[in-house]
Amino acid sequence: MLDTTPATAVTQVLTDLNTALSKADPAAAAALFETEGCWRDLASLTWNIKTMEGPDEIAAMLTAQMAQIKPRGFTITPGELAEDAGSFQQAWIDFETETGRGHGHIRIRDGKIWTLLTTLKELKGHEERKGTTRPMGAEHGVEQGRKSWAETRAEETAQLGYDVQPEVLIIGGGQGGIALGARLRQLGVPAIIIEKNERPGDSWRNRYKSLCLHDPVWYDHLPYLPFPANWPVFAPKDKIGDWLEMYTRVMELNYWSSTTATSAKYDEVKKEWQVHVTRDGKDVVLRPKQLVLATGMSAKANWPKFPGQDIFKGEQQHSSTHPGPDAYKGKKVVVIGSNNSSHDICAALWEAGADVTMVQRSSTHIVRSEPLMKHGLGSLYSEEAVAAGVTTDKADLIFASIPYRLLPSFQKPIYDTIKAEDAAFYAALAKAGFMLDWGDDGTGLFMKYLRRGSGYYIDVGASQLIIDGKIKLKSGSDVDHLTETSVVLKDGTELPADLVVYATGYGSMNGWAADLISQEVADKVGKCWGLGSDTTKDPGPWEGEQRNMWKPTAQEGLWFHGGNLHQSRHYSQFLALQLKARQVGLPTPVYGRGAVHHLK
Amino acid sequence: MLDTTPATAVTQVLTDLNTALSKADPAAAAALFETEGCWRDLASLTWNIKTMEGPDEIAAMLTAQMAQIKPRGFTITPGELAEDAGSFQQAWIDFETETGRGHGHIRIRDGKIWTLLTTLKELKGHEERKGTTRPMGAEHGVEQGRKSWAETRAEETAQLGYDVQPEVLIIGGGQGGIALGARLRQLGVPAIIIEKNERPGDSWRNRYKSLCLHDPVWYDHLPYLPFPANWPVFAPKDKIGDWLEMYTRVMELNYWSSTTATSAKYDEVKKEWQVHVTRDGKDVVLRPKQLVLATGMSAKANWPKFPGQDIFKGEQQHSSTHPGPDAYKGKKVVVIGSNNSSHDICAALWEAGADVTMVQRSSTHIVRSEPLMKHGLGSLYSEEAVAAGVTTDKADLIFASIPYRLLPSFQKPIYDTIKAEDAAFYAALAKAGFMLDWGDDGTGLFMKYLRRGSGYYIDVGASQLIIDGKIKLKSGSDVDHLTETSVVLKDGTELPADLVVYATGYGSMNGWAADLISQEVADKVGKCWGLGSDTTKDPGPWEGEQRNMWKPTAQEGLWFHGGNLHQSRHYSQFLALQLKARQVGLPTPVYGRGAVHHLK
Repeated sequence: MLDTTPATAVTQVLTDLNTALSKADPAAAAALFETEGCWRDLASLTWNIKTMEGPDEIAAMLTAQMAQIKPRGFTITPGELAEDAGSFQQAWIDFETETGRGHGHIRIRDGKIWTLLTTLKELKGHEERKGTTRPMGAEHGVEQGRKSWAETRAEETAQLGYDVQPEVLIIGGGQGGIALGARLRQLGVPAIIIEKNERPGDSWRNRYKSLCLHDPVWYDHLPYLPFPANWPVFAPKDKIGDWLEMYTRVMELNYWSSTTATSAKYDEVKKEWQVHVTRDGKDVVLRPKQLVLATGMSAKANWPKFPGQDIFKGEQQHSSTHPGPDAYKGKKVVVIGSNNSSHDICAALWEAGADVTMVQRSSTHIVRSEPLMKHGLGSLYSEEAVAAGVTTDKADLIFASIPYRLLPSFQKPIYDTIKAEDAAFYAALAKAGFMLDWGDDGTGLFMKYLRRGSGYYIDVGASQLIIDGKIKLKSGSDVDHLTETSVVLKDGTELPADLVVYATGYGSMNGWAADLISQEVADKVGKCWGLGSDTTKDPGPWEGEQRNMWKPTAQEGLWFHGGNLHQSRHYSQFLALQLKARQVGLPTPVYGRGAVHHLK
Repeated sequence: MLDTTPATAVTQVLTDLNTALSKADPAAAAALFETEGCWRDLASLTWNIKTMEGPDEIAAMLTAQMAQIKPRGFTITPGELAEDAGSFQQAWIDFETETGRGHGHIRIRDGKIWTLLTTLKELKGHEERKGTTRPMGAEHGVEQGRKSWAETRAEETAQLGYDVQPEVLIIGGGQGGIALGARLRQLGVPAIIIEKNERPGDSWRNRYKSLCLHDPVWYDHLPYLPFPANWPVFAPKDKIGDWLEMYTRVMELNYWSSTTATSAKYDEVKKEWQVHVTRDGKDVVLRPKQLVLATGMSAKANWPKFPGQDIFKGEQQHSSTHPGPDAYKGKKVVVIGSNNSSHDICAALWEAGADVTMVQRSSTHIVRSEPLMKHGLGSLYSEEAVAAGVTTDKADLIFASIPYRLLPSFQKPIYDTIKAEDAAFYAALAKAGFMLDWGDDGTGLFMKYLRRGSGYYIDVGASQLIIDGKIKLKSGSDVDHLTETSVVLKDGTELPADLVVYATGYGSMNGWAADLISQEVADKVGKCWGLGSDTTKDPGPWEGEQRNMWKPTAQEGLWFHGGNLHQSRHYSQFLALQLKARQVGLPTPVYGRGAVHHLK
């Protein structure tokens, strides 16, 4: 291939792909891939979030889908250049299907496709109105009895949920619900977001006062309205809260705050939900076609059970309800757990003058923020990336273009580098008794996040307090029981306590479905999150995508949405398009929905 | 010059300019300009907003300023290409002064400078923190007793204006005050904005309900946080109100709503103002160094005096307080005046079913919105301009780069084109009795705006109602008097009326200074706005810039800020930098402050 330019190599493969597809020849299309080649699709060919691994899976998918979907016109994206990346060539690509337009990314090695990403960009005839097609706002010309924008909006607000039923009900008004709500609004899908708190952003405001985002600003943008250039790298929780509140307002979302859902039931005949919600103290029955649980993959608190919790005379809190350190100056606090929340809470308590002990029950992955930003995110999400033309949209797609099967091999070298660079730091932590790990296979933080959503701390200072003994550490032993005044560990250590904080994480999101709908439906859809990697807290078999997230589940009309700001932004696009397609009755043949192997 | 590239031509002139400046030779620098050449400076060399016309004025300015300002290093902006524009070459330029960095634009004809724009971009050592220098947000590391962002912000809010005095007090919290407040915040200048209304944005919300921006979205962005791509072309007033409210919050402005200023006095010894304000019913004394009147160039209502106003039994309103048409269905309404507000109000009243008559007292310039967007703004502020790389910042500077002496010759062809294209429309209006004009010299809408801020309507539908006789028109006669039940014109026509709306425009902003400070100070600073073009409502002598706007006035520490969203965005930059320089004690030798020729 030495005499071939990247553009020629990519164009040749895309031409062959178009030919195979036009001849309805899945085998020929699959033969364009390497043996290890992967095709990742976000809702464009599979109406699912799905990775096909190897030619056989690719041929099977095409055999099932191509007649209805009619994928075609694969081409290098106009205005973009194919690149030689050393061992492979890569390019941004466009294509279309019978009902939509797609965008994606391709990597080619030795003339064969190594990775192919296809994503649904928009539905034909249902494009978002922006740029040249943005609304006029003022309707020029005059018309008797015409309503103003404010009157029209007030009428919509008064009617939706009462006289007019929403197509989609989103339960949970954090960043996930808000980002999805914004996309649905732009697509013209009537939606209501319900949120138990008083104001948008309260899910951040109500957390412990020292909380700041651990992800940097470039990773955190919401759709449509990026943070301004003066926005801090790591935004404080209240500032994010204010942003979410204002975003909800200017994006004109139908956001019902101080509202809780009490029950939901799917009517298989009418193909709609009946959801009871309590708004301002009054029961309202909503009948949406689609129900999205955006209650947070970190919101269903795991409250561990220990003997003696009933007789303990001090306070007990889950990390999600810990109010912050102000009331605990001079008090003895025991924090159970050793992940992000535990570290943040311990540090804030120490700052406020509490006597704080962290109980580390199992090993934890620690990465300091600076090297993580530099090595882990810098090439995609940083000021340097922006300067190099890697917009947030491009960064999201580049990250998405690496199939989860391959991602560990991309991630491990990053953490090997960090481990070497920060060797003295890790030695000091180990010397303090802290049990460290790098994930079962040494692939670090992102893989832990994707597999189990836990097991790490992005260090912004607490580790030094542990090294210095300012946060006391008890590691290697679990809680045995509580007495009236203390926490007693299995090794016999007794830790006197005025307050016990359970920083013990969160359960699977299908637990929300059990609470709201039924245990039967929760079991039918099964566990959310995790890749099936057969590593700690992510049991196999291999799924290749995060279970149940942003895609059809075993329960018709039930969807899960969540994750960090990056995922809320990126995946809300595909979830919104799936919901739009159903609203307008486009065919959405779902390919390869995973079987349920785990209930929680 | 045929064998010269644009880059060579521009570089040669800039090199010669640098040489002349380094030799402290104003005459040599001035000799680089054409006889008709102009140098427009926005706060970088003159610490003023000032255009020097012709080599003599340029030499005089350099003679006065160059020793202190030390302008140098003029160069084509890195990353930008000089362009051949047919009859001239042009380029973006950078330069520096002793205290600042500048940006600008140059046009060259036959090797001589035709136009030179120099603007102050930032002050050395006082750069805004954005992009790579944005704040971290989370302070990594831990520290006992540390305050959170919310606590720090709450403390600032509680102290500023009471325990801590603001450097700058901005009176008026509309788009002007808000844009300036945002810039000052980014520059670290403590400032308070006071606003009589309850909420940011109310100055828009409180206007007549059909009001939409007549300027398109690309022209209307605020600093730092552009509108998203889905924002309507012509935003409805309430939507702009919501945006301003959101912006004020997320930009962390110290915005005192429901607050009015009752008096202000300058202490020449202490060099500070003493301003009494009423906040939530309580008197607060503020002692800012700088006082900015951002009360709006369209806010000091002109309420005309006619005999019989005291006996008229119906309602009388100024356009600025007209609540909208809802209460006037079936009522007889007479609207005095024929500019934007009059047309909007008449159309909304007709839509609501009122019997409405417009009294046109003098000729009016009418342009339909579509051709105005296409011919008047399209090359700078449109989706097409954005696609062609003309960002809002560039558009602002291109517009600023044309000295006001030359602007009419750039504007007239636009309106000649529109007049020809829309000939049938204008004929129909004339046939309906409407008195049309195109400005004294046929230069159209922008020149009218810059010269007098009035005299036109951007047609979004009302003109057709006049053509069709749905809005009744009485033109060519002024009001003589009111009776108990009617308006009587000088030609004897009697117009029965339940409501009279005076859409009679606004007075000069120095009227605010008279109300707040004293008539003496108002007279000392003189008229605001207008170029001294010696055309209707813009008496000479020629000023070459808008009087008193965004630059030092005859009253130390008193500044005027206002105009449309474009001007609020663009000129707030230079006003903010002038205020910052004074806060930190940089030398700011002001060159060429205009004499006062008119009191209002």
